[in-house]
Order: sequence, then C-alpha cells, then structure tokens
Amino acid sequence: MKTNKRNIYLEMQRLEEARSLWLTHFVQKTAPETIPSVESSGRVLAKPIFANQSSPNYHAAAMDGIAILAETTYGAHVDHPILLEPEKNAFFVNTGNVMPDNTDAVIMIENVLKTESGHISIEAPAIPWQHVRKMGEDIVATEMLFPQNHVITPYCIGAMLSGGVFQVDVRKKPEILIIPTGSELLDWQFEKIENAPKGSIIESNGTMLKLCAIESGAQAVRHDIVPDNQNALCQIIENNIAKYDMILLIGGSSAGASDFTRAVIEETGKVLLHGVTIMPGKPVVIGDVQQKPVVGIPGYPVSAIVIFDQFIRPMIYQMMGIQPPKRKIMPVQLTRNMPSKLGIEEFIRVKLGKVGENVVASSLPRGAGAITSFTQADGLIRIPCHSEGLKTNEKVYAELLKSESTIHNTIMAVGSHDNTLDILADQVSQHYPDIKLSSSHVGSLGGLLALRRGTCHLAGTHLLDANDGSYNVSYIKKYLPQTPVRCMHLVMREQGLIVLKNNPKKINSIADLKRKDVQLINRQSGSGTRVLLDYLLQKQDISPDDIIGYHTDEYTHMGVAVNVLSGAADVGMGILSAAKALNLGFIPIIREQYDLVIPEIYWETPLIQKIVIVIRTREFQQKVLALGGYHTDRTGELLTI
Amino acid sequence: MKTNKRNIYLEMQRLEEARSLWLTHFVQKTAPETIPSVESSGRVLAKPIFANQSSPNYHAAAMDGIAILAETTYGAHVDHPILLEPEKNAFFVNTGNVMPDNTDAVIMIENVLKTESGHISIEAPAIPWQHVRKMGEDIVATEMLFPQNHVITPYCIGAMLSGGVFQVDVRKKPEILIIPTGSELLDWQFEKIENAPKGSIIESNGTMLKLCAIESGAQAVRHDIVPDNQNALCQIIENNIAKYDMILLIGGSSAGASDFTRAVIEETGKVLLHGVTIMPGKPVVIGDVQQKPVVGIPGYPVSAIVIFDQFIRPMIYQMMGIQPPKRKIMPVQLTRNMPSKLGIEEFIRVKLGKVGENVVASSLPRGAGAITSFTQADGLIRIPCHSEGLKTNEKVYAELLKSESTIHNTIMAVGSHDNTLDILADQVSQHYPDIKLSSSHVGSLGGLLALRRGTCHLAGTHLLDANDGSYNVSYIKKYLPQTPVRCMHLVMREQGLIVLKNNPKKINSIADLKRKDVQLINRQSGSGTRVLLDYLLQKQDISPDDIIGYHTDEYTHMGVAVNVLSGAADVGMGILSAAKALNLGFIPIIREQYDLVIPEIYWETPLIQKIVIVIRTREFQQKVLALGGYHTDRTGELLTI
Repeated sequence: MKTNKRNIYLEMQRLEEARSLWLTHFVQKTAPETIPSVESSGRVLAKPIFANQSSPNYHAAAMDGIAILAETTYGAHVDHPILLEPEKNAFFVNTGNVMPDNTDAVIMIENVLKTESGHISIEAPAIPWQHVRKMGEDIVATEMLFPQNHVITPYCIGAMLSGGVFQVDVRKKPEILIIPTGSELLDWQFEKIENAPKGSIIESNGTMLKLCAIESGAQAVRHDIVPDNQNALCQIIENNIAKYDMILLIGGSSAGASDFTRAVIEETGKVLLHGVTIMPGKPVVIGDVQQKPVVGIPGYPVSAIVIFDQFIRPMIYQMMGIQPPKRKIMPVQLTRNMPSKLGIEEFIRVKLGKVGENVVASSLPRGAGAITSFTQADGLIRIPCHSEGLKTNEKVYAELLKSESTIHNTIMAVGSHDNTLDILADQVSQHYPDIKLSSSHVGSLGGLLALRRGTCHLAGTHLLDANDGSYNVSYIKKYLPQTPVRCMHLVMREQGLIVLKNNPKKINSIADLKRKDVQLINRQSGSGTRVLLDYLLQKQDISPDDIIGYHTDEYTHMGVAVNVLSGAADVGMGILSAAKALNLGFIPIIREQYDLVIPEIYWETPLIQKIVIVIRTREFQQKVLALGGYHTDRTGELLTI
Repeated sequence: MKTNKRNIYLEMQRLEEARSLWLTHFVQKTAPETIPSVESSGRVLAKPIFANQSSPNYHAAAMDGIAILAETTYGAHVDHPILLEPEKNAFFVNTGNVMPDNTDAVIMIENVLKTESGHISIEAPAIPWQHVRKMGEDIVATEMLFPQNHVITPYCIGAMLSGGVFQVDVRKKPEILIIPTGSELLDWQFEKIENAPKGSIIESNGTMLKLCAIESGAQAVRHDIVPDNQNALCQIIENNIAKYDMILLIGGSSAGASDFTRAVIEETGKVLLHGVTIMPGKPVVIGDVQQKPVVGIPGYPVSAIVIFDQFIRPMIYQMMGIQPPKRKIMPVQLTRNMPSKLGIEEFIRVKLGKVGENVVASSLPRGAGAITSFTQADGLIRIPCHSEGLKTNEKVYAELLKSESTIHNTIMAVGSHDNTLDILADQVSQHYPDIKLSSSHVGSLGGLLALRRGTCHLAGTHLLDANDGSYNVSYIKKYLPQTPVRCMHLVMREQGLIVLKNNPKKINSIADLKRKDVQLINRQSGSGTRVLLDYLLQKQDISPDDIIGYHTDEYTHMGVAVNVLSGAADVGMGILSAAKALNLGFIPIIREQYDLVIPEIYWETPLIQKIVIVIRTREFQQKVLALGGYHTDRTGELLTI
C-alpha cells in the first residue's frame, strides 16, 4: 500500500495561469479615504486633484528691485534717462512682494540708480511683466494637478499645498493579517531561545512578510504564532476575515500530516487552487473566504518570498489600483550550467557582478530553506517550465534585486573559502560603502578555472605543490598559462583537524582517520583543503576508501566545523579560525599560504585598487589576527610568479 | 550710486567645488544605536552582524517520510527489499522535524511501502543525508551575516531572526530641523487661507523638504514658520543646534532687504560659502555652527529641491555612512534647442517619452518658482557651466526621476492646449494605471512640426483654413506631406472672448479689441487660437498694432483666463471651459473643431490603441460635456484626410 497523499497536486497550475486566476478572481479595490495632504506621501490618488487656488495667487515681484509700469520707461536711454519718483510711480519691492497697483514690471536692484534729488533714474526701457511672476504662472485654480492613480511624492505635496489642496482622497492601504502557523515555531519575543526544546524554530517569516507587505504599501499585522490546530485556525479566520482585506497563513500549506491550511480554507470558504508548478513555492494554497483572498504560504523562507513576489505583492498593488514597479532585466553570463527539472519553473537566486564587459551570474544555494540565498542575491534567473536547464553559452536574463550601480561596484571573488574574506568584505564596506565584495566558495581550483573563464575579478587559493612544498604558483602556471596575473599574499593560516572540544575520540593525527570509530566530513574536490588532505593521506599510504565519510563533503570550513559540532561527523580538515568560532577542538597539522590571484587587466581598476588598499591597512590585519590561527607578516605583498 | 548688495556673490563657487567643500568639512557620522532587529528595515548597520545560532539548529527532515540510517538500506532492491521496523530503525517524520538519533537520511513518504506484518519495505538504498537539512545548512553560528554599512531589508531581518540576532547596532537617523522663514508665509494648519492678506504665500517647502529628508532616511522636524527677524532666528538656531545634526533655514538665503540667513549664520557660527553657480539654487548659504551644518536654502521650490538634491541628501547619506543611490542616466533627444547662460550650470526639468526608437526630452518651464515643473518632470538635464546651451543634434543625457518603464509607457502629446486633455489623462490613468498621457502645450502648429520631427506620438490641433472654413486637413497636407497620419476628431468647442464676470468693460465683439481702454492677452504665435484671432482681425481689417496687449502672450487657455481674472488684461481669446473654470464672462465667437493627429506608424501600437479606447468611452465624453462648451457628437471618429 503506497500512501498517496500528494495526488491533490494533480490540480497544480502553471504560474501564469495561477496568477491570472488570482488577479481576476479578486478585483475589489480598497475604498477611498480622505487624509491630510501632508500625510499622503507614497499614497495613491483615488480621484484626480484640482487646484483650489492659483500659485502665485497675485502678481509677485520675481526680483528685488523697483516695480514700475513698463510704459513709463519707454524711450529711456543712458543719454536720456527717465526719472521716476519713489512711492509714486516706482516702488521698492523684494522678491515675492505683491506688485503695487498700476505696475507691471520690475527693474532689478542692481540696475536702480538714485539721483541726488531722490528720484530714480531709468536708463533702459522695461518690458511689460519683466521679473514678475504673474498670478497663476505655476498653478491656475481649477486646473487638474494630478490624475487618479497618481502616486504622491513629496514634490506633489509641495504642489498641493501651493494649490490650496489640504485634503486628498487616496486609496486605503490594503490591510493584511499574517498568521505564522506551526507547533514547532518559537516566538523570540516571548520565549528564551536558550530554553527552547530541540526542534523548535525561531519564527521569522511572519515578520519578514509583514515588512515586505508594508514596503509594498499595505498595512500589515503579524498575528501571534498559532500551533497546528485546525479548529483554532478556522476560528481565527472567521473572527478576522471581515476586518482585513487579505489573510496569509504561513506554513502548513503542503500535504503533510500536520498541514492544515487547505482544510482550514475548505472549512471557512473554498480553495481556488493548490499547487503551482514553480520551485521554490510549489505548495501554495489560494482560497476565497467571504470574497476575500486567504492564502496558504509555504513555510520555507525562500518559498514564502517567491509566493509573496508572484502573488501577494501584485494583489496589494491591484487593490490600490496601480501596477507594481517592474524590476530591471539584464542579460547575464552564467558561470556554470544550471540544470533544472522539466515541468517546473525555477527561480534561481544569483550573485551578479560586472567582470570585464559582461555581467556574470553565479547561482546561490537552491534549497528553499536558505534565506541567505535571498539576502546575498543580486538577481533572479527564471528557468521556464519547458526547459531542462540553462547552459553557459545561452543568452540568459536576470531580474535585478539590487541596483545596476551596486552590480557595477561589486568585486566578484571566486575560489577557496577563508574566514578572512568576511573580515575583508566588512572592511571594504567600511572604507568604501559603495563597493561590495561578493565571495563564492568553489574551492581553490574552481577559482583558478573561473579566472580562466573570465567570470570573476579575483580568486582565493591555497594549493600545495607536493613536489617542492610551494603554494599556488605552479598551479597558476598550469591552469592560467595565457592569463597574465598578479598574485597577492593574503595570510598564512593554520590547517588541522577539527574535532569536538576536549577531543573525546582522541583523534591526534591523519592516521587516526582510518579508525572505524571515526567519521570524517570532507571538503569538496578541487578545494585546497581536499588537495592537502589527499597529499597527507598519500604520504602515509592511506587509501580514501578506508576512511568513513571521505565521500561526504562540505563547501566551507564553517560547514565542516558545524558537522563536527552537530555530531554528523567526528573530524574534518579545516582552519583554526573555524574551530575557534564554534569553540571546537583543533589538532594543528600544517601552516599554509592563502593568496589572491588577480588578472593583470583588473589590477589597475579602481575596484581592485581599493581592495588592495584595504588589505594593506593595519586595521584589517589586526582583525584577521584576532580570529586566531592567522599570520599577517607578509599580508599584501605581491609574489613573484 | 549703484546699490551693490550682490557683490557677496564674488565668493560664489562651482557646484563640484562647493559639494566637495561641504562633504569634506562635515565628516561626522551619526552615533550607533541598538534597536530590535524587527524594527531595523531600511536602516544602516553600524557594525557587522554575526549569527548567534545556526539555522537549522539541528539536523531536520526536509521531507515528510521516514528517517533511517542510510547504511541500513544498502543493498536494497525491488527484488530484495530490506525490511525495517517502525519506531525501532525507521521513524515517521514530517518536514522540519528533528532527525531521530542514529538516523542520517529520509525516505519520502511517496516511496514508503508498509508490509502486512507492519514492517517498512525498502526497495532502493538511501544516500547519507538525503532529504535532510543539516544543522547550519543555511547559517552557521558565528558566521558574518552582513558587513557594516549594509542597508537592512526585510529579507535580512528574516535571516537575522533565523540566526538568533534580535538586536542590531544601526546608525542613528540624522536629525534635521527645518525652519521655514518669511513674514509672507502662511501656515494652512493655523490660518484660513480665505482670510489671508494679499501677498501671503502658503508655506509648502518646509513640509516638502521634511518629506524628502524622511525619504532619504533622516528624522526630520518642521519648525513653525519664523518671520523675517534676525534675532528670533539666531535664538532658534542657538536653542536647537545641540539637539539636531543639521538645521535648514528655508528662504532668506539671498541678499535682499529681508534676507537674514547669512547674517544669522555669521552671528551664530561662520559662513563657509554663499552662492553656487547653478540655476535654480544659486543663492544657497552653507554655514558651520558648533561643527554642525546649518544651510540657508533658497525659498523658490525648485531651487529648494535642487539644493536638497545636490547638498542635503548626500549629507544625510554620508552621516549614515553610505552613498546615496544613483539615478539612472539615459541618452535622450531634445525636442528643441536649450539655450543656457555661460558660467551657470543649469538643471532643466524635462518630460521624457519613448517615441519610435528615441527617448525624447521636452523642457518644462525653467522658472525656479514652478513646482509643477518638478511634479511633471520625468528627468533632469544638466547644462554645464562652460556651455551656452544644448542643440537638438547633440548627444544629451538625462537623469531619470521616474522609472524607465514609466517613460516607455508615456504617450507624448504635443500641440494645442485644451482642457479635455486633462480629462483624457485622468481617464487613461483610470483604465490603464501603467500608462501616462503627457501633454506639452506648444500650439497647433508646434504640434504638427513636432510630429514632423518625430518627437511626439500625437498632436492636438484646431487650425482653421480661412479659404474654405475647414479645420486641420489642409495644414496636415501642408506640414506633413511625407508622413502618413490618421486624424481623429476629439471635440467641437466654443471659442470666444474671455472677460471679467458681468463684463464690466462691455466687450462684445472682436471690434472692441481696438478700444484704447481694452487690454488684450494674446496666445502665442503658432497656436490655433492665435491663427483664429488673426483671421477674425483680418476679416474686419483691424491691424494688430492697434490692439493694446497684442504682443503679450500666454501658452494656454487657462493662462489667458487667469490674466483676465487678475486684471493683467481685460480680454483674451479662449475656450468656454477655461472661462467657466474661473467663473469668468464669455462672449461666444465661433464653434471650432479640435482633432488629434496620429502618425500611421504609431496607430497600431498598444499605447495609442488604449488611448483610442478611452476616447470612445461614454464616461470620457460625459466628463468632457460636464466641463461646458464642448460637443462630443462625433468624438472618436476618424476623419478623411
């Protein structure tokens, strides 16, 4: 007997169909409300605005000077000045003053000559209305200032006040109730995370979506966490549906044993669709409860963001009567192929940076649970349903999540992972807030290959040449024979075996990795650390097949360390700073050299020159030393290749 | 004796020098403050953030199914299934559950088979860690989440909560006090504008700049209006300088008799510079009072905006430790030459729209008093100091104030002014909120010439052919012989003489315009109304030189009407709806035809087709009829050319 819970997804729809169903099923706009103009910034006009008064509301002097009737000055010449009498037919005015009766022009104060008799001498004729702001020059009463659906800016508010418009009719902000559901969730506001039972998760999606909704123009409220309880959820929906324009339930939208959203919507209203052929975000439930949208949003943060983006944000804008702003689309070059499942539209988060003439895109972790894949993302690449993936030689477009200038000011570092890169990113950001250091961890060899393909600005590498004990140089010669590069020394660092604190399994050397009671967590192949381990094993004639866990790998030192901490492995090769960060034990094995390889063509660019300056600061080096396990005696030196 | 107040401007500086002096003189960042993470959206990190706990914080099932130890399934095959025992070596788990002790993989519920004996039958081996989210997969405790100077997004807050970061150190928002100064100013909150003495101006810049400052990330307070009183202003500065990071005084920054800002700064601190070679915005005063910036901002709204943009916004960002976002720059084609004064950098507000392959730019009124030149602007064109202006054939760039997609969805209408165009703009915005109708008023002939130059999508025109009494067609043939166009009838409308209510001067016919006690306000040459008037004058053998005011002109019907209302003129030729809008008198002269001319190449585009749909709606026509003086019997008909 095969359990077949998931056949409800037979009704799964494609994204475009689902969006169209969604946006045409709920067409109600929010009601208009009257608010003070000065509080209307960012709001959407429900009706056009007409000026109540003209601006200026009188003929006004536009300069400091004297106001006169232009025709009294006709014929004036430096040889035949015309004399006018102050306060009779010539009146001193300051900018903004009302033009006195029977005047129609201003002569600038610089050109005003007083005679000894107290008259004013005019040496050139004035033109009617010169230096006068005529009534209505800017705004004429009754004129339309802004059409309906206009989005109000501070400038608009300036114009409204000038036009005597102190109240405006705007669309109410859509009111949204966001309900985080799940018995495993923990509210950090009410409970101490230290006391939380294992398996509890800090609730974050409710707050995140609330802030996303506010950013989109809604008024959003996050409900307290509701445990997985169908009756409680139904009650909350029924109590609140009249008060809100939309309700979002986060979590429980799938078809697991404790997923109640579908049942809750079926009980309180009806399900319009369940499941969309996208990844992340597939198990969304869209329902209609008393003609209002109630949406079950998947609980993985990336799924939640994608569903918010594709469904919730457009609905918020539609309720306000306008279209959401469109993200900029840009052609990009992939750093590697992106396989994808046929029949699913995939949203891949990518890092973007301008390397040479191209904007290159390297994909971030694709799991729906990785919120950091969104915080680090500069863009999104969509792989359509009908595609099995994208190839590096294809024309690919990315939707930008950051500004174009951010992308142009991003230094793309690809290569080996080292904790000092975080320090470097922070220090670059301190000294040059408009520049970003973006690191992808693909191992030392991966970095050199990325340089060869032209998909990064620099590569961090620590590749040991077993023949002579040298680092990096022979690999650069081998893998980048055609590419002139500079090699800058970054740090020396301690590599060793990361074990639990107090080393309960008494792992003391590479030879211990053979032990049957010892489980290794390895680094991915191509990483300098893997190269090092393989060299050490070979030297001792240990076969990889004799090591438990040799084929399980991680991409970073921190990943290795957390495997040890969690008990998933007993030992891993890694750097001292990673062990120290998680308060683990460390058996030193070797001191190795970590360098940055930078193509000559980028060396002189401002981006690289700024990073070089930062590397050579005392402050950077001190922060690196504080991590432990690093030596900075030669940091910033250029090496001979 | 020439008064020479303005020689203080001898110290006037160029924009780039002034900005550099400004930004290097005040380098103090705001202090850090600790706030809850959930309230930090949009704020700038004062320190890097490190995760306090891993996410997930335990090995978690990533699917609903059974958790097992992978090695217990090795060798399983459909022909040789391995049997496991629930709750002994196979454990049912839901997504997110803690992996039970001694398990390292999940088999999806879809692939779980139960035997009749209650065992679980495994038909394929599991791979270690399949469908498991390992501890730290997303975030490893102690890892850096974000560097300093990172701007926090809702996604970042999601990551912070997941990483157990509930408090963050962000830069305090710069606190800015904004003081509107000027005895002529009126605060609409406290005074009725109906009772205001002539010459009072509704204060709007204070509120506008406050909202601009808030939009830039500051905390801004608008002080009550302060009259032109040097002592009072000094007192306010001295009382507040310790409490704020910056003080802005609006108005009084020039060198007129009631301009006190410079003196106030000199008394309380020192003036760093007075006057920048830009227009608008020249008379800015920048001062240092107790090491804090105190700025005198010119009182014209456009000057105030330019100074805010060029000086205040960059300083707000600098105080927060980051760079302001850069506006997008785009090549544009000018619709006409833009002369400019040598030695002054000019900021011209332009309307932008994509016409054919080019983005065309038409300049808005250049006066510093026209706030509507900013509310209507899509972009800014900067004419450098060393230039005497820009020519239509030059390569010119515009800074965008609106999004690129807004500009691509703008219908550029150039030609004769008619009040129904406002109604049309509003109705287009109602039906198609992403489309904007942007009208420039250059007269009927100007519209046809713009079509010929390819700088607009359509032209409104009402040109009378005196030979046969026909409208528009003969002009289209004459001015657009090479351009296939469609001509769509918009409205018939009443033209006549606009006079004061009750017609105190008893102006009853064109012949009355000759009277010596009658002053005309004319329309600009090339306008259909001017063509009409000239035709009527010629028919009656009246010479323009016999008419007082013939050479004074306005660009719109509303402009003419407000001249009559204000007493600047006694009469003007215009449409009934303009007279009605301002409650003026009207002597009907003729019923004329107002059409839209649309090049064939744009006819089928979605933008034009949508406007055609709107013109043909009953709702549009009813709103036009409600204006008075219009007839819509044939509105929307295509005319034979």
